[in-house]
Amino acid sequence: MNTTLFQSLPDAVSVYEVSPRDGLQNEAAAVSTYNKTRLVDALAESGLQRIEVTSFVSPRWIPQLSDADDLLKMVHRPPGATYSALCPNRQGLERALATGVEEIAVFLSVSEGHNKRNVNKSVAESLAGFRDVVQPALEHGLRVRAYLSTLWGCPYEGEVDPKRGVAITRQLFDMGCYQVSLGDTIGAGTPLQTKRILEMFLAEFPSERLAMHMHDTRGTALANVIVGLEMGIRTFDASVGGLGGCPYAPGAAGNLATEDLVYTLHAMGIQTGIDLDKLLEAGRVASAIVGRDLPGKVLRAGVRSLRR
Amino acid sequence: MNTTLFQSLPDAVSVYEVSPRDGLQNEAAAVSTYNKTRLVDALAESGLQRIEVTSFVSPRWIPQLSDADDLLKMVHRPPGATYSALCPNRQGLERALATGVEEIAVFLSVSEGHNKRNVNKSVAESLAGFRDVVQPALEHGLRVRAYLSTLWGCPYEGEVDPKRGVAITRQLFDMGCYQVSLGDTIGAGTPLQTKRILEMFLAEFPSERLAMHMHDTRGTALANVIVGLEMGIRTFDASVGGLGGCPYAPGAAGNLATEDLVYTLHAMGIQTGIDLDKLLEAGRVASAIVGRDLPGKVLRAGVRSLRR
Repeated sequence: MNTTLFQSLPDAVSVYEVSPRDGLQNEAAAVSTYNKTRLVDALAESGLQRIEVTSFVSPRWIPQLSDADDLLKMVHRPPGATYSALCPNRQGLERALATGVEEIAVFLSVSEGHNKRNVNKSVAESLAGFRDVVQPALEHGLRVRAYLSTLWGCPYEGEVDPKRGVAITRQLFDMGCYQVSLGDTIGAGTPLQTKRILEMFLAEFPSERLAMHMHDTRGTALANVIVGLEMGIRTFDASVGGLGGCPYAPGAAGNLATEDLVYTLHAMGIQTGIDLDKLLEAGRVASAIVGRDLPGKVLRAGVRSLRR
Repeated sequence: MNTTLFQSLPDAVSVYEVSPRDGLQNEAAAVSTYNKTRLVDALAESGLQRIEVTSFVSPRWIPQLSDADDLLKMVHRPPGATYSALCPNRQGLERALATGVEEIAVFLSVSEGHNKRNVNKSVAESLAGFRDVVQPALEHGLRVRAYLSTLWGCPYEGEVDPKRGVAITRQLFDMGCYQVSLGDTIGAGTPLQTKRILEMFLAEFPSERLAMHMHDTRGTALANVIVGLEMGIRTFDASVGGLGGCPYAPGAAGNLATEDLVYTLHAMGIQTGIDLDKLLEAGRVASAIVGRDLPGKVLRAGVRSLRR
């Protein structure tokens, strides 16, 4: 019996909400800017302090998020919260600066195949391009986060060498990114693999500089996050209701559902600053604005089974 | 960083399939005996060696399983496989003996409130009643398993004292049960709780005498199973597709999906003797015979995301 398990759990962790961006960018049906505002405001009302609201990519790439500028003007901005947006290039940064977000994020994949199809660049070209974004953003007082996708596997190349991810991550930190969020983009990750990947990263970088961004395509996201928690990771990305994937592609799935993560963390005595009942209310808003049931399990079952 | 994590993983574990019983007993729509046969045969074809096929409860209690005798005559019985059925009393045992199952199971809850509502007996009355079943079954050469429900929480009493479960388990072993399957009936369990419960049981009993039977109501079943695996548990109950719950009660949920468990175990280098592709075929049979999509995630997404 492993008797050291869960002996160094933290008092609190940070939950990074990505549903307005990573969730809604995959919705086939149009969601109005007003309804996006309802979602972001409900998420903030639950106590979430870090929310990725949208993306300043070209509307030609992701028409679902073409209202990024308007949305960021319409949402309520609670004091102390960090609102973020993806910025693929200098043009995106100019738009982000005009809206007054506190943070931007850059993104690339470990695997050349996915990066090429996702942003039509090699990994080296992506990294070179970030130099037009990260330094200017820092000079304007923004924080810059980075997403590193396909670390647990690539839909085009299969297995990925985590050492490539470590090397890319070092460059992202050298540029000035404050945190790199390690992504299981295809939701293929399993606990032993997660341990091995995180060991490589934690041998090189402080745990607080890393986050986990796990899609739940095969139901393994929470188990992988528990491994990360045990190994010292303290920031976890999640999407309320498990929003994400594509309703026309049955295999696609969103991120780990925020409410399932928060339910689990709270039961383990770990604080998140989030009111779980209000988070479920945000989940119901998410479900209503996309017009379908969402996969998040605590959203369906409720927090309590007790009938007395 | 916890560096001892996953350093003592086993070469193989045993997966105990419960979908024909625990899954189908909760289906509102009638499933024909022929279609149940298709499911059981498909499960066996995947390599599953332990299958709980049905229950010899009174048809008045669970009409969905009133065809238990016929079903056990119709299913293919591959050599080496163990087919089991629930037996609540001596009458059920007589029926079980007539069908030639290799194993029966008795069942009760840790909490008085759930046991009373489930079988209309106190826990002490349940245990006393097992004496009419277990010893005669052993004398006829059957193995006897036991289910201990509501260990992670009771829908009527809330929190449950695991020490009560330890005491009940000792009585079940003293009677001659070879294994007790510890059940999170309401699917409320979380990893730290799982560790604490298992520590109490593993301080008293050898790990091979215990199994875990986790419902996935709040998405935590796999994470809890990984904790159990790390602590030495080597038998896990599961239901293909996550079959179970009630389609008319959105909060209800079945067991951990067998394919999600097997996908994860195989990826961790742990053998199960199961062909995952054939298991997915059994999941498609399960989905077809109940006429709805099932929650199992690998069933929806497939094993591989790779497109090349």
